[in-house]
Amino acid sequence: MSNTTDSSKHDSLSTPLLDSISSPTELRRLERGKLPQLCGELRNDLIATVSQTGGHFASSLGAVELTVAAHYVFDTPKDRVVWDVGHQAYIHKILTGRRDQLPRVRKLGGISGFPKRDESPYDTFGVAHAGTSISAATGMLEASHHDFPGSEQRNVVAIIGDGAMTAGMAFEALNHAGQLHRKLIVILNDNEMSIAPNVGAMSWAFSKTLSGKLSTSARRHFKSLVERGVIPQAFYRALDKAEEATQGFLSTPGMLFTAFGFRYLGPIDGHNVEQVIDALERAKEQDGPVLIHAMTTKGKGYAPAERDPVKYHGVGPFEIEGGTFAKKSGKSAPAYTTVFGETLVELCKDDSRVVGITAAMPDGTGLSILQDKMPDRYFDVGIAEQHAVTFAAGLACEGMKPVCAIYSTFLQRAYDQVVHDVCIQSLPVVFAMDRGGLVGADGPTHHGVFDIGYLRLLPNMTVMAPKDEAELRDMMLTAIKHEAGPIALRYPRGNGVGVDCSRAPQEIEIGRAELLRLAHGRHALLIGFGHTVQFCMEAAEILSRSHGIECSVINARFAKPLDEQLLGEMISEHPLVMTVEDHAIQGGFGSAVLEFMADNGLTAGSSLVRLGIDDFFVEHGTQAELQKICKFDVDAIVDRVYSEVRTSSSPRLSLLREVHAR
Amino acid sequence: MSNTTDSSKHDSLSTPLLDSISSPTELRRLERGKLPQLCGELRNDLIATVSQTGGHFASSLGAVELTVAAHYVFDTPKDRVVWDVGHQAYIHKILTGRRDQLPRVRKLGGISGFPKRDESPYDTFGVAHAGTSISAATGMLEASHHDFPGSEQRNVVAIIGDGAMTAGMAFEALNHAGQLHRKLIVILNDNEMSIAPNVGAMSWAFSKTLSGKLSTSARRHFKSLVERGVIPQAFYRALDKAEEATQGFLSTPGMLFTAFGFRYLGPIDGHNVEQVIDALERAKEQDGPVLIHAMTTKGKGYAPAERDPVKYHGVGPFEIEGGTFAKKSGKSAPAYTTVFGETLVELCKDDSRVVGITAAMPDGTGLSILQDKMPDRYFDVGIAEQHAVTFAAGLACEGMKPVCAIYSTFLQRAYDQVVHDVCIQSLPVVFAMDRGGLVGADGPTHHGVFDIGYLRLLPNMTVMAPKDEAELRDMMLTAIKHEAGPIALRYPRGNGVGVDCSRAPQEIEIGRAELLRLAHGRHALLIGFGHTVQFCMEAAEILSRSHGIECSVINARFAKPLDEQLLGEMISEHPLVMTVEDHAIQGGFGSAVLEFMADNGLTAGSSLVRLGIDDFFVEHGTQAELQKICKFDVDAIVDRVYSEVRTSSSPRLSLLREVHAR
Repeated sequence: MSNTTDSSKHDSLSTPLLDSISSPTELRRLERGKLPQLCGELRNDLIATVSQTGGHFASSLGAVELTVAAHYVFDTPKDRVVWDVGHQAYIHKILTGRRDQLPRVRKLGGISGFPKRDESPYDTFGVAHAGTSISAATGMLEASHHDFPGSEQRNVVAIIGDGAMTAGMAFEALNHAGQLHRKLIVILNDNEMSIAPNVGAMSWAFSKTLSGKLSTSARRHFKSLVERGVIPQAFYRALDKAEEATQGFLSTPGMLFTAFGFRYLGPIDGHNVEQVIDALERAKEQDGPVLIHAMTTKGKGYAPAERDPVKYHGVGPFEIEGGTFAKKSGKSAPAYTTVFGETLVELCKDDSRVVGITAAMPDGTGLSILQDKMPDRYFDVGIAEQHAVTFAAGLACEGMKPVCAIYSTFLQRAYDQVVHDVCIQSLPVVFAMDRGGLVGADGPTHHGVFDIGYLRLLPNMTVMAPKDEAELRDMMLTAIKHEAGPIALRYPRGNGVGVDCSRAPQEIEIGRAELLRLAHGRHALLIGFGHTVQFCMEAAEILSRSHGIECSVINARFAKPLDEQLLGEMISEHPLVMTVEDHAIQGGFGSAVLEFMADNGLTAGSSLVRLGIDDFFVEHGTQAELQKICKFDVDAIVDRVYSEVRTSSSPRLSLLREVHAR
Repeated sequence: MSNTTDSSKHDSLSTPLLDSISSPTELRRLERGKLPQLCGELRNDLIATVSQTGGHFASSLGAVELTVAAHYVFDTPKDRVVWDVGHQAYIHKILTGRRDQLPRVRKLGGISGFPKRDESPYDTFGVAHAGTSISAATGMLEASHHDFPGSEQRNVVAIIGDGAMTAGMAFEALNHAGQLHRKLIVILNDNEMSIAPNVGAMSWAFSKTLSGKLSTSARRHFKSLVERGVIPQAFYRALDKAEEATQGFLSTPGMLFTAFGFRYLGPIDGHNVEQVIDALERAKEQDGPVLIHAMTTKGKGYAPAERDPVKYHGVGPFEIEGGTFAKKSGKSAPAYTTVFGETLVELCKDDSRVVGITAAMPDGTGLSILQDKMPDRYFDVGIAEQHAVTFAAGLACEGMKPVCAIYSTFLQRAYDQVVHDVCIQSLPVVFAMDRGGLVGADGPTHHGVFDIGYLRLLPNMTVMAPKDEAELRDMMLTAIKHEAGPIALRYPRGNGVGVDCSRAPQEIEIGRAELLRLAHGRHALLIGFGHTVQFCMEAAEILSRSHGIECSVINARFAKPLDEQLLGEMISEHPLVMTVEDHAIQGGFGSAVLEFMADNGLTAGSSLVRLGIDDFFVEHGTQAELQKICKFDVDAIVDRVYSEVRTSSSPRLSLLREVHAR
């Protein structure tokens, strides 16, 4: 049994095409009739590579024909093809000269998992967060109509998924592009999925396109008019015919995009490459904005992925024949995400006010566990972080306890809603920020390294981070019990440290830190926030053992409010103070400690060193690799404490040096 | 000649109604037939009050009937009416017990210009930024269907303008609400305006509602089908009839909202209170989401406001009969906004790459000057800050120099786009942040006091602020010339300081501060960022004259990057350093200086005092009142320097005290 479907097979006797294509220029020299074969080869190539290396998978399988057609019809890179999110752009990378680099995708020093301007002139816009393509494409197209040094006439195409289309900014862009009336070509890649199955009224509207073109409510409406004799029977039959002739003009997606001033073409079969080419050629001849509605299947051409596109959205290495994934060796600690999801179910059971909200990331946030166990307490609002937060504010107004589970990087989308709708009104909304800190392979677009900074600015906000997964549970309870205002907790991507999570969560006093290690020598004080507390403990152990440097360690727990009493006491007792955070160093947790020290005259005796991420965007790689590059891992702490001790003018540390010198 | 139109007149012989209404309960006891009279009285009352006190005006005049009908039909405050933006909520305030407080609206200690939860149980949700109402209302409605302590069944109504509807989050909310299928009632208050005339394809679509219900493109489509014999002639006639019967179902707004799963009712005349009541009663009986499309006139009932609703959107005191505004006494310096707008035109003339972008605030940002002079270099994208920023990123990709003119508080809406679409790609987009700092009467929702903090976190970003309007011009040129990445400049609401602006703008070296005053005594160093430099200079003068305390003053110009050389030298020479900013104290400009000091061991000799806004949301009042409350005005600087000098342990300041004591 083969898991590749018919469409990805090609006549084994015909000459392979893909090897001869190093750029879209060669692609455009092929006869149209050869393209289905090329699509099959591309699919097989992708399956062969990703099954070895891992990466985003099912989306690209679904976009093979769209990608080939776009590069075939348009003169890329002069014409601009703008991807949205970019999970689906692996085929694009293969076709634009990066086939041999694909095995290093998402690895340190290798190519990015997303389109990236630095990487290729064919990557017209760096993407990863959803819904940006129409805006960027509108800007590019508008520029091509202005006269300035270097301007050129060009076609611009945005390719956006139906999931990304639920992002509000996509509508803002449609509204503007519809008014500009330039020839913007938007391809709606409709696979009825975002990462998870797509949600929202619109997705329901889209899904009616193929089955029963005329929307059900319109149909019902007209039927009742016929029955009541308001309009003649003939009308209804004529409408059906017109509907057919107008190619879905009266379908709900047709209505929607027409209302925005777009010409609607479709629906078309997004896996029929010639049909896609025809639609693009037609679009090219328009003089206003056009939307091509292409129906596709996520995972197309690889049966296991077609059957379970969520599982095959982003993958590790797998075995092609059966689609089975390599077993992870050994027993690892549970992921923070899982602990979060399971604990939320417990809290929902104990407190009828609690609900969970995700913006289209049920699996990524662990909320799928709640969805499964208590579906009436679970909301997936689509890729709509702004709405998620203000919807939560509305729930909180009425006395509920909404938990917004949004990745740190995606909460940036709802910053104004956090400020304006939640903080100003001091509503008790809980923000559970998964992927706080460096996330690894997804790279700079996904690192959650600004949240402490942008949240601690805000009055009424509480910001906390647990040192391990048991404390995550405690903080979740703490958050639910916190009635005074909003509260945010951040935790990293990946597994916890393996501590016992069986005891019931316990409430933590707001603003109370934890002294984990009190060094008799009081040489240095390490203050960790979140998972970096583990690094501090390990470093303290090494420093004591190998260098005789005695470090106290504080688990800060709260970046806002700080535990001023404990920090005040401990800082005055230690000549060297170091904060360690998985976050941008400017404006972050360390800066909060610094502000506290300055405001309380604690700078005289102690100097503060802040470890974290310097002022640059960190690339992709494993979390451990990136933490090392950013110099806040265990080794970095040890090295920095050691070098600070060597150069400090503090009497106590000078004494330590003398002891060392002996 | 009277400026009040017929609809606001009532029979002078009938008993006045408004005096007897202190809450919606009394309103609901009136006969329906009396309501037009009440609406007239409300209008006159509003005109009488706002002409004396100033405030938001034209929007409320346009929403009189909607407000009366909503409180008449629904059992407020148990039923929830959620306003959007809230410029239109003055009538709501009058009807809900705040008539006598309206003369103090937007004044220190008086009621807010916006709905505010603290102020009244009828103010169900605090609003001011656009597009939040449907989200909040969806949350409230959903809560009423859950069983938890205190939950209750209730109706929930959101009232949103067609301008606010261009905000992406409104669509995110429609998409979710359409799926939830609860009885959410949305009233679209369509006056074809946001603050300025509304823009975008959707507004054009809306405008076709009344004139030629069947959308033009649909009509054209069908006509061609008839001509080609695809569908019979009878069909076209039947369609017209059906169109009439279905009340605009096939109109473009009908299509749009139907696509989102809403039942569309309308269009109705939003100034016919009985028609509005009928529509609300009908909506109340639905079991799914309903959208009522009400056509209204901004400024309705006051002729000058109907003629020029932009001018009368928000007003100072005026004379009712002629609609003329009180002349401002004396000649004042030009507003920063005006200088910005005029300078942008100069820059556009000199550099063909430059364009200006506003999110529906042409007048507020000064971009109307560009619109007037060079319309092809001007973009109004609607209330769509997210799209504005990514559209700008698209323009920048192609070599243009987009200037995004967005109020500081509204740029929060586009935070993710600033991070993800601009900073990560280091695209040279210029952010002109008007209303940076405390804005005055608009209060906490509009203060732009987090921008330094949330922007200086971001790699590749440059953040600057001018000390006066001439430096604003220099910084604008600097921004345009900056090719290396994004650059943001913030300037305050209100007038400049009156300096000469006639010289051509000059480029400033990135990261170069300006030493404005070097005190021989070197007692203290005042570092201002932006307009607070003026406070520092004035305070230095007073301190020298009255107390013999000699202060040096630095105009920092850049919060990122800091002028490390000048700051380093000057900080080491002064025992007391004080930063002064019109911004939240945590994470702001002062923190940047603090980080610099800590990282460079400058804390030993100098102590840093940061003046700015403490950790609370500042209410409304005049800017001067609020600056005093927040303790960073001239008096506050003088007092703080004086008290620091008195208690400082620095030898130089002790010496100064001794001199004083003599």
